[in-house]
Amino acid sequence: MNAYSRIDRCRAWPALKAKQAENLRLALGPERVSRRLVPAGAGLRYSWGAMDVDDETVTLLADAANELGLVAQYRELASGAVMNSGERRMVLHHALRGQPAGAAVKDGRDFRAFYEAQRARFSAFADAVRSGAIRGSTGKRFTRVVQIGIGGSDLGPRALYLALEQWARQRGELAVRASFISNVDPDDANAVLADTDPETTLFILVSKSGTTQETLANEALVKSRLGSVPGMDASKHLVAVTSETSPLAGNPGYLDSFFIDDYIGGRYSATSAVGGVILSVALGPKTFSAILEGAADADALAMEPDILKNAAMLDALLGVFQRDVLGRPATAVLPYSQALSRFPAHLQQLDMESNGKSVDRSAGRVDIPTGPIVFGEPGTNGQHSFYQLLHQGTDVVPLQFIGFEENQTAPDPQFEGSTARRKLNANLVAQIVAFAKGQDDQDPNRNFPGGRPSTLLVGKMLDPAALGALLAHYENKVMFQGFCWNLNSFDQEGVQLGKVLTKKVLADGGPADPTLAAYARLLGLS
Amino acid sequence: MNAYSRIDRCRAWPALKAKQAENLRLALGPERVSRRLVPAGAGLRYSWGAMDVDDETVTLLADAANELGLVAQYRELASGAVMNSGERRMVLHHALRGQPAGAAVKDGRDFRAFYEAQRARFSAFADAVRSGAIRGSTGKRFTRVVQIGIGGSDLGPRALYLALEQWARQRGELAVRASFISNVDPDDANAVLADTDPETTLFILVSKSGTTQETLANEALVKSRLGSVPGMDASKHLVAVTSETSPLAGNPGYLDSFFIDDYIGGRYSATSAVGGVILSVALGPKTFSAILEGAADADALAMEPDILKNAAMLDALLGVFQRDVLGRPATAVLPYSQALSRFPAHLQQLDMESNGKSVDRSAGRVDIPTGPIVFGEPGTNGQHSFYQLLHQGTDVVPLQFIGFEENQTAPDPQFEGSTARRKLNANLVAQIVAFAKGQDDQDPNRNFPGGRPSTLLVGKMLDPAALGALLAHYENKVMFQGFCWNLNSFDQEGVQLGKVLTKKVLADGGPADPTLAAYARLLGLS
Repeated sequence: MNAYSRIDRCRAWPALKAKQAENLRLALGPERVSRRLVPAGAGLRYSWGAMDVDDETVTLLADAANELGLVAQYRELASGAVMNSGERRMVLHHALRGQPAGAAVKDGRDFRAFYEAQRARFSAFADAVRSGAIRGSTGKRFTRVVQIGIGGSDLGPRALYLALEQWARQRGELAVRASFISNVDPDDANAVLADTDPETTLFILVSKSGTTQETLANEALVKSRLGSVPGMDASKHLVAVTSETSPLAGNPGYLDSFFIDDYIGGRYSATSAVGGVILSVALGPKTFSAILEGAADADALAMEPDILKNAAMLDALLGVFQRDVLGRPATAVLPYSQALSRFPAHLQQLDMESNGKSVDRSAGRVDIPTGPIVFGEPGTNGQHSFYQLLHQGTDVVPLQFIGFEENQTAPDPQFEGSTARRKLNANLVAQIVAFAKGQDDQDPNRNFPGGRPSTLLVGKMLDPAALGALLAHYENKVMFQGFCWNLNSFDQEGVQLGKVLTKKVLADGGPADPTLAAYARLLGLS
Repeated sequence: MNAYSRIDRCRAWPALKAKQAENLRLALGPERVSRRLVPAGAGLRYSWGAMDVDDETVTLLADAANELGLVAQYRELASGAVMNSGERRMVLHHALRGQPAGAAVKDGRDFRAFYEAQRARFSAFADAVRSGAIRGSTGKRFTRVVQIGIGGSDLGPRALYLALEQWARQRGELAVRASFISNVDPDDANAVLADTDPETTLFILVSKSGTTQETLANEALVKSRLGSVPGMDASKHLVAVTSETSPLAGNPGYLDSFFIDDYIGGRYSATSAVGGVILSVALGPKTFSAILEGAADADALAMEPDILKNAAMLDALLGVFQRDVLGRPATAVLPYSQALSRFPAHLQQLDMESNGKSVDRSAGRVDIPTGPIVFGEPGTNGQHSFYQLLHQGTDVVPLQFIGFEENQTAPDPQFEGSTARRKLNANLVAQIVAFAKGQDDQDPNRNFPGGRPSTLLVGKMLDPAALGALLAHYENKVMFQGFCWNLNSFDQEGVQLGKVLTKKVLADGGPADPTLAAYARLLGLS
């Protein structure tokens, strides 16, 4: 294993540690807004004018990025190095979208070709479902597709589907509506099933191992529902997305199965078959391809060694500075786009599960703060909710705005002199400046301190390519931050203990551990 | 105005400041779990066995609560004192559910009677819609009700509706499905309208002032849709929830209007007509009454002077200790109930908009941390997402679990020896213990430090009364925390600056401020 360094061991670190937040009230101006703008893929631009860092800090961050070899590590990763060191796995989600080309070949196996072959298979399958060539067991067309999966098999695909559902609908591409069942709480599956006609519904079971407790329990519930309809054959309504070695693969209980492998981590799997099957069925294979192209575009930009031209790396370093130098423990993702309503929930997993860790790749304890808390809701909704704290609370929360010039849908009538889109974006612009510049008032309760930093990812419209670039931008940002902290961003050992203890609670006779038993009594389990 | 004190000026403060987190790995055991249990209303219990505070700390917190007169301040508030001092308003949401009885009389006006009269009116209206006595303008029954509102007019009502939608459905009480339009992004309204038949849809416009920009813009969009259907009369499809003095009140453009007043803050309005009209139409007036009864039960318990018998006050003080002594900036709300999927988003507003402030009621700067960041998602979903950071991240996040013994819905078949409910709750129990006790491992990457504190609100089933108690528990907790920090938890001056700057961006000729203009260009506004 290579020995990687950590940002707090870089030569720039002492100087970085001594830096303070720049005074945004003074520093932010139009020239800076025009200057601090970086392409982020598929027409997206990353605007960092309202970050409270001076140019010298960025030079120091660039120096650290070079010393840590962030881009070199990314190249290593993309070319098939075993970057998921604990689990001894490669990390190949970039190969899902063809970037860098031809790189993911190992021991004679071309992974890029494998992923492309799967994509060709599920694209054909999706076309057949959409055209009515493949139908339910009673001869009816599929009008609904339901994904059964949890974590990465749910959050990313769900966020992407919601992001493009109305876009596709307006363009006549939404052939099949999608729903999702994730929670082991049976009220989740029962709610979805109550709105679903089994005869016209296709279920996609997603579990890499084929052993995920929640997903199998939900499959059992769904199958019992399908089994209750006379004349129906459940196996004609189920497909599996899983690994080739899982019990679900090629199983006659499923209409078909599509494959991923151990080199696609759950939270990085939205551009694999995990997201691809449902998105291709619902929105069409062309739409899914366009997402991949946008992601590939962002991936290519993330190879750029100059931090001022590499939006994902710059975003990553600015975040590390917020976290480790300015001591800010959380960050908010604020998309001014209702279609991105669940995108913050996806980023919450992506970021917090990747970098919410304290042990580095050399098994050393990381003694500076690592991954932040990530939360967020769409604007303008959030303005009427938690922005009060963001403006006037005792802690500073760095903000990540996302915005678009155009709507996905029509109509958008004028009201009181402007369209709703114009109002939406006026609010976004106003918030960035209000947070940064604040405003003095003699009434302390109406005083705005300002100095609250933000960035903005801005695009023309939230279309498939822009969405793909957005997704990849954050994947790459999280990857670069993991490199800064020398973390393995691709495992999740922190979820294991809960699984072990759950088994003890479910064991025959109830939990032997008296504390577990006491809580079990509280919940009526014993 | 009374001069209130602040927790950092209490005599117990120096001793509190010197306290450290108790070692949960040692302290947590079955006796403690049984002992640290407090009724929280409507059968809910508040379990705080897994909080990392020793009994001496709780004694100090109780002393501070007494010195600050937390319960006395609550009594003052409930009896009509002007507790929203900046806006010179009373704070009367407790009177919506009749607790304390007869107290809210001021200048000859009985507010309790006013709220009850409104409830009687909208209950009768809801019955008439549900029975088909009131129909759309083309003679069809209403099958859908859509709330147009933002912030408190959206988050609380939406969270409550989703919490009981399946409960009501299984019991044949879901006569009319509800949807919500909130964001000024036109893609929000267009998405809801695309799934709505105007002839069978009732829209509820909710704005206390009748001037909320987002809500009026969405109303315009909805009206243009209604106007496009031949033979329809839009005024027969719209009702207003507003103040008696607003332009929407008694307006012939609406089928009816129901009233609130300035003494019901937006984020505290879920039990007023703001939540009441839509919940009564969708779920029935009886269901809404049961929510109020549960809330009143929790309100009554919050009057208890002994902190060990007052779940909301205890929860508040434990949270203040986490924030100000242990220095923990965020807290996660983790309901093991899919029906509570949007309850964390409501609490996010409730808490962060109430206590995300730095200036106290005497206009002094608060120099200790105030309201925390609040985020959360339902379990077990969160386990497959951000729990990694919660278990092994560099910061400790105090956790607020919520659980129930029983499902809302059937079926719940056995799978691998247990029902899904049993699996769900086994996971919940396991997580509490895993967070608190951790587990040593020779592989540092598999080491769980433990010492991660949590509380649990547990009930028999998420029914209307339990939901009401849950809602009121948090409202009262947030109120008590505001008293501890001597904040006005009932205004939101922090949202004003953004509104002012938005107007400047929307002004004729675009924004004069060059920084606003630079951002406006980025977003295609100029």
